[in-house]
Amino acid sequence: MKKSYRRNLYLALIHHPVVNKQGDIIASAVTNLDLHDIARASRTFGVNTFYVVTPLNDQKILAQRIISHWTSGGGAAYNPSRKQAFDQIEIVDSLKDVVDDIEKGGCVRPKTVATCAKEQDRSIGYKQFCDMLRADDESAYVLVFGTAWGLAESLMSETDYILEPIRSDTGYNHLSVRSAVSIILDRLVGDR
Amino acid sequence: MKKSYRRNLYLALIHHPVVNKQGDIIASAVTNLDLHDIARASRTFGVNTFYVVTPLNDQKILAQRIISHWTSGGGAAYNPSRKQAFDQIEIVDSLKDVVDDIEKGGCVRPKTVATCAKEQDRSIGYKQFCDMLRADDESAYVLVFGTAWGLAESLMSETDYILEPIRSDTGYNHLSVRSAVSIILDRLVGDR
Repeated sequence: MKKSYRRNLYLALIHHPVVNKQGDIIASAVTNLDLHDIARASRTFGVNTFYVVTPLNDQKILAQRIISHWTSGGGAAYNPSRKQAFDQIEIVDSLKDVVDDIEKGGCVRPKTVATCAKEQDRSIGYKQFCDMLRADDESAYVLVFGTAWGLAESLMSETDYILEPIRSDTGYNHLSVRSAVSIILDRLVGDR
Repeated sequence: MKKSYRRNLYLALIHHPVVNKQGDIIASAVTNLDLHDIARASRTFGVNTFYVVTPLNDQKILAQRIISHWTSGGGAAYNPSRKQAFDQIEIVDSLKDVVDDIEKGGCVRPKTVATCAKEQDRSIGYKQFCDMLRADDESAYVLVFGTAWGLAESLMSETDYILEPIRSDTGYNHLSVRSAVSIILDRLVGDR
């Protein structure tokens, strides 16, 4: 097993199309702490690139301002380890743009793997996905996470795979996206 | 193995004594999203009580205002699952008060288990702690997490155990406390 399999793992945080509490399709706002926590977890677990996905110009400008503070502004000198985390973030319009960007970078066309808090018919397990990740160095995968009340069905149906939810026998299943990203990365590529 | 072992697991988020970037002992500010993310993860994984530990009155008032919004204010009707998570939070002055409160509730005196991003001489592993948690229903444990740049040495030296860090072979180890709590709970009591 080669160590480099982690470099074939990418992460996308989707702000559109996601659903709100009523199930309507919306574009959610970028959350400062999503960028911090998910960038730090991505860097810790060796994810290649963390894509922040939003088609809204004002949200792209906001995300870029936050990122620039930590990569080239006052934050870079104040906290160099935070710079290392933020250096891995890219802002793009759509999941299609994530896939295109990875392919353009000289990689094979990556497979997309949606995450969801609810059971889905075509879910794959952690063990199965761990094996897929480690099977060869040619394949690449994008883990897709939704903000707000989760990924829109239209986006989910276009992904290549859906990862099984983080189950809990307490019957309560309302983790933040920051917690879900952390746990899923630990399960897939954590050093235990 | 009885399912109830999770009810013997408690969590404490320490805002004093913790250290700042320079290593000075400080009292950190309560962070809104710490309460949300850690309450949701605690509820998901069946932790008994999530203690927010701060001796500062203004910070206690702030924490209580946030909690009340979600347990009895507008947030309770808007998002009942968030209420379930926030119902489990208690605010206390010190780690000693956490231990006293658990004992006062009719439990045995719990053992304290510090968490730390750095290797420590007396660290115990996840497997060992998992076995301890499941060994009997009489014992109780408090997982202790630091905010800011981590727990003060003085507090850490008083805990019964120290849990090994979340290792990563990327050499980068700067997870947020929200991510660390989520991963550690999943490793200890997650349903995989």
